[in-house]
Amino acid sequence: MFSVFSHEYYMKQALKEAEKAALLDEIPVGAVVICNQQIIARAHNWTEHLTDVTAHAEILAITAASKHLGNKYLQECSLYVTLEPCVMCAGALAWSQIGELIIGANDNKRGYSQLAPNVLHPKTKVISGLLALESTEMIKEFFQKKR
Amino acid sequence: MFSVFSHEYYMKQALKEAEKAALLDEIPVGAVVICNQQIIARAHNWTEHLTDVTAHAEILAITAASKHLGNKYLQECSLYVTLEPCVMCAGALAWSQIGELIIGANDNKRGYSQLAPNVLHPKTKVISGLLALESTEMIKEFFQKKR
Repeated sequence: MFSVFSHEYYMKQALKEAEKAALLDEIPVGAVVICNQQIIARAHNWTEHLTDVTAHAEILAITAASKHLGNKYLQECSLYVTLEPCVMCAGALAWSQIGELIIGANDNKRGYSQLAPNVLHPKTKVISGLLALESTEMIKEFFQKKR
Repeated sequence: MFSVFSHEYYMKQALKEAEKAALLDEIPVGAVVICNQQIIARAHNWTEHLTDVTAHAEILAITAASKHLGNKYLQECSLYVTLEPCVMCAGALAWSQIGELIIGANDNKRGYSQLAPNVLHPKTKVISGLLALESTEMIKEFFQKKR
């Protein structure tokens, strides 16, 4: 059992975004942004369809959340993402001063903690490993189908 | 004297973009992307007007160049930018596998070389310090007017 406002609930919403990406033949990574317990932005990886390496779930979610709030700073928001952000996305999250970052699976190859562990804003709280297995399994399955 | 196809010529085009940003009350940073000696994308910092921390000159230029080429990889391209890219932009340049990165002024506070010096793609050639003074002066003047 979990409350509708639990971390698990929001990460499941991010996982739903990742599922949408997989259905579109995009690497399945999803993100949602929460403000005052409401989901104000949802996005998934969209790099292939947009032919744009910058179209990661987090970048699209930050842009959408800022548009929704009319504010480029997201100190009062939490971003849930199914896979550890890359350096680009972590850099974007740093500029946004996001209040809280909740990560699903670690990314030992491309995650920001490998190349730029200190990139986030010092006030950003980070939680890692939430529903990591679900995220990892979805990515594994995606690449197994590709073979 | 310089040839129309010199590094200086293209960096001056990037500086023109930075000037446009300043006129719009945006921190003056500009970028251009070159492919086969042609400018295929121009952009300047646009974060305030778009209310979006991700709208840096380099991100917008990468997106525009990829759209122009119909290719998300930019191995055959050079990106000229008036100020050293931040971690977010360097991360984006890494994903794009940009062939060449030509930087104007260093950014000792927010430049990628501070927090993620190894983030770029290993095949990307980097040139730094091109028309650095022009870029620095423009930024100084911008912030002096702000006071």
